[in-house]
Amino acid sequence: MTKPCIICVAITGSVPTKADNPAVPITVAEQVESTQEAFEAGATICHAHVRNDDGTPSSDPEKFARLKEGLEKHCPGMIIQFSTGGRSGAGKTRGGMLSLRPDMASLSVGSNNFPTRVYENPPDLVDWLAAEMVKYDVKPEIECFDLSHIHQAARMNRDGRIPGSLYVQFVMGVKNAMPVDRETFDFYIKTVERLMPGAEWCAAGIGPGQIVLNEWSVAAGGHTRA
Amino acid sequence: MTKPCIICVAITGSVPTKADNPAVPITVAEQVESTQEAFEAGATICHAHVRNDDGTPSSDPEKFARLKEGLEKHCPGMIIQFSTGGRSGAGKTRGGMLSLRPDMASLSVGSNNFPTRVYENPPDLVDWLAAEMVKYDVKPEIECFDLSHIHQAARMNRDGRIPGSLYVQFVMGVKNAMPVDRETFDFYIKTVERLMPGAEWCAAGIGPGQIVLNEWSVAAGGHTRA
Ligand SMILES: [Zn+2]
Ligand SMILES: [Zn+2]
Ligand SMILES: [Zn+2]
Ligand SMILES: [Zn+2]
Repeated sequence: MTKPCIICVAITGSVPTKADNPAVPITVAEQVESTQEAFEAGATICHAHVRNDDGTPSSDPEKFARLKEGLEKHCPGMIIQFSTGGRSGAGKTRGGMLSLRPDMASLSVGSNNFPTRVYENPPDLVDWLAAEMVKYDVKPEIECFDLSHIHQAARMNRDGRIPGSLYVQFVMGVKNAMPVDRETFDFYIKTVERLMPGAEWCAAGIGPGQIVLNEWSVAAGGHTRA
Repeated sequence: MTKPCIICVAITGSVPTKADNPAVPITVAEQVESTQEAFEAGATICHAHVRNDDGTPSSDPEKFARLKEGLEKHCPGMIIQFSTGGRSGAGKTRGGMLSLRPDMASLSVGSNNFPTRVYENPPDLVDWLAAEMVKYDVKPEIECFDLSHIHQAARMNRDGRIPGSLYVQFVMGVKNAMPVDRETFDFYIKTVERLMPGAEWCAAGIGPGQIVLNEWSVAAGGHTRA
């Protein structure tokens, strides 16, 4: 029995700039064009960050609105997932675009270290973001940077803060957080199957970990991010 | 083959007050008296926080100095472990007492959520605390609130930031962090054996998890905190 593999394309991300890679799409027009190429090549989810004109991360709802409009026009049927990640803003500004009712949004349910700082997702902000997603009918992709984040998502599912079937993403290869580690990857899958039967999962590797995680995910029956 | 089980007594902790439990030792004199009872009952490590007179957490090196003096006098040979945990101060004040050269000190190597806030251990503070422990010959007890913290400790051991053999503690049962979970506990042990052969480990359960973790630890060959 096979199930279709969902390919999620993370356009832009929050960190790389044109200086790192001239191909990184920064403006909304560049993002739409780049996503359309991926969509025509088979990607079905677009995980989107937005940027200021100088390339720095933004969480401006107006930019997200224009991006959504462009994607709906040029990639009809593609699932649009907005990032509520902490690089683009602090506190509730991270969820200011959820009222645009994207199909999905990323949701971190715990805190962890990043290469040079703490990735802060305090409990009250997590609860607020989850409630906004319920209010606007946005399906969360739960970002698991560590094992306890899987437990926390299961707990929030049981008590109704994250209703319905879960979609989780394992993130590996972030310096000072979880490295790319096969035993941990296998245990993540086992834990998802044990604590949240029926959940879908995908995995994202950072930098050189990306291709490794893609291969592991596809072979293990998960979805994948490119 | 059996090995001796180390019993670590956590006097006072950082949260409970006399209002919660009149038996909680708050003053240095009360702490010394209470530790002496545990020492005579067989405890070999004293994990110590200090408090202000009103019961709020403190990281005052002068209080730690008086506690150390009292313990050395009344509990000769007991291993003294100071807490550098984040409830008692922010930033480098958390490590201000390391120059007193306690035998051990707790060291968190990653960040995670606590019941109502983020437990912040930014990478540069972790590195500074680890370096101070090297400088003053203090053996760290590495507090693992999540799986990636074990990986991070192993990485810091490999690159020399935490030299020598490792002593790690699994902490379970903190709300919004890792729950008391048997499969995770077993995987923690496996991960320690895989990544840091020869390391010693212990486990601490919070609240009702304490007795559970004590039983699991002793049965699995770890040390225990009471
Ligand atoms: Zn992202
Ligand atoms: Zn994904
Ligand atoms: Zn403590
Ligand atoms: Zn201990």
